[in-house]
Amino acid sequence: MREFRRDPILGTWVIIATERWQRPSDLASEQRTVKGDFCPLCEGNEDKTPPEVFALRNGTPPNSRGWRLRVVPNKFPALRTEGDLERRGEGIYDRMNGIGAHEVIVETSLHQETLATLSVEAVRNVLWAYRERIVDLKRDRRFKYMMVFKNHGSAAGASLEHSHSQIVALPIVPRRVKEETENARDYFRHKDRCVFCDMIRQEMRERDRVVSENRTFLSFTPYASRFPYETWILPKRHYSSFEQMETGEYESAAEVLADTLRRMNRDLDHPPYNYILHTAPFQENEEEYYHWHLEIIPKLTKMAGFEWGTGFYINPVRPEEAAERMRRGESLGN
Amino acid sequence: MREFRRDPILGTWVIIATERWQRPSDLASEQRTVKGDFCPLCEGNEDKTPPEVFALRNGTPPNSRGWRLRVVPNKFPALRTEGDLERRGEGIYDRMNGIGAHEVIVETSLHQETLATLSVEAVRNVLWAYRERIVDLKRDRRFKYMMVFKNHGSAAGASLEHSHSQIVALPIVPRRVKEETENARDYFRHKDRCVFCDMIRQEMRERDRVVSENRTFLSFTPYASRFPYETWILPKRHYSSFEQMETGEYESAAEVLADTLRRMNRDLDHPPYNYILHTAPFQENEEEYYHWHLEIIPKLTKMAGFEWGTGFYINPVRPEEAAERMRRGESLGN
Repeated sequence: MREFRRDPILGTWVIIATERWQRPSDLASEQRTVKGDFCPLCEGNEDKTPPEVFALRNGTPPNSRGWRLRVVPNKFPALRTEGDLERRGEGIYDRMNGIGAHEVIVETSLHQETLATLSVEAVRNVLWAYRERIVDLKRDRRFKYMMVFKNHGSAAGASLEHSHSQIVALPIVPRRVKEETENARDYFRHKDRCVFCDMIRQEMRERDRVVSENRTFLSFTPYASRFPYETWILPKRHYSSFEQMETGEYESAAEVLADTLRRMNRDLDHPPYNYILHTAPFQENEEEYYHWHLEIIPKLTKMAGFEWGTGFYINPVRPEEAAERMRRGESLGN
Repeated sequence: MREFRRDPILGTWVIIATERWQRPSDLASEQRTVKGDFCPLCEGNEDKTPPEVFALRNGTPPNSRGWRLRVVPNKFPALRTEGDLERRGEGIYDRMNGIGAHEVIVETSLHQETLATLSVEAVRNVLWAYRERIVDLKRDRRFKYMMVFKNHGSAAGASLEHSHSQIVALPIVPRRVKEETENARDYFRHKDRCVFCDMIRQEMRERDRVVSENRTFLSFTPYASRFPYETWILPKRHYSSFEQMETGEYESAAEVLADTLRRMNRDLDHPPYNYILHTAPFQENEEEYYHWHLEIIPKLTKMAGFEWGTGFYINPVRPEEAAERMRRGESLGN
């Protein structure tokens, strides 16, 4: 069973996807994790994943060895691509079928590599793969938003160790994304400026929250960080959508991303983390008020208990202190 | 340092409270947890907590032995009670002083007891203590909302094992609470009915999500549960604020709460959990459109990685299945 259900009070949609677990009691113990030496994402095991939808290969045929990066449908997808939404009510509640795409970006053929150890070019390829998949999935008119995210480390929810990210194409715009774009639009209406551009200007002037920077990209710990060491990466130039950038700019983004992750690793001893790409919904493509960015959240505290349910956060580390610690020392080359 | 900082995009306030940790590197390892045999919340250690602000005692003097329940200020508070808010801007950002109250409800004098093993009367006393503290803290005109929550078990963020809950009195209404009340108001405007009362009616008719029930209270797994086994407890009679109820009704709430927790324990083998009391903001006290309730969230999955940052949830267990499993068997008496 895969379906969307709408919270009648908050208006958020939840995906109920039950095929991903055998039975509820699996939850109480450890999460389903591939044990032992076998990894379905390693080179040589191409037949253990659904056929690839994108790959960077050295002239080798699809689904064989000889690749640097692969994108494959998720074997245990939260949503399925076939069918119609069939929106309907159940009493006061609303539901629709769990239509969407759920893909996995295998970031490297080598099991032990991570985004912090890969070359800048390889990290650029990961970002480029996001772009390619966004451009392709946008053609399906049923989809309204694409969520690109990464769970790194078991404590951050990764069920496979091999470095990968995920893409979920959704037939709805998540409420939190809507709030973000609507509030950014309000700000623009008042000030005729993009709120993210304003943040970038202030961060570049004050510098106490800057973590890493090159000519075109900036990473900093946001003023109202919800989590310790929360770090955002933004293009200095205004782009509302991730896929809008010029070809060379993905390498520039990769440079700041890799440097930021290395700094985080050094100061926090390789923490588990999540990152989420925030980009404009498909229908709001080139807007003055929204600015794509990547939010990185190391998973450090267990304090966040009630925060899950309330959206109210207590952060025990000043963002200025986190940034200062990550800034120390020179650029961390690979 | 304790201050509120406002997210310029989402408008949410975050508490930055740095005194609670020694240094950021503490975060990377285990969270500060009281180790060994010493527990500051046990009977006999009354001098290890700040002086009590409320207690249920057998005629014994304050801060001595001989109590069933104590409420004390948090020794490591996220907010402090003294001072003014001093709202001010920092460039495009907004901040104010971290003013508020942060208290701990010690639910029992016995270290090994939990809300699931205590008598219904003792659980009723915990709810009564919430009520007493809400009524008292409401007198401070600086406070606009009171968050009552419980972290049970280390994985759910509890830093002390001894059964306790927490109260945070806030000078602002959290944005998520505002959304909840505003959306409930919209629903009322359209239908002239409380959305929560509508949910209760539908759940009592359909029964497939009901977990526990008595004459005046109902617990059920919500239709759009964000988390596996998420369970809400509501009074069948419409009350917007928790502290509004008639005296006898707190015992009735305690009965359903204790029974629900026991059913959860039985099916999930004593999971860590959080619960959060959702009650109307102080200024919206007796409203037709809002309905207080308690949201219980067992901490079962690590899958929620990106969900922290996005408000978008994937739930692997159908709420109907969770309810059916918890319903099995008769009422679980103590």
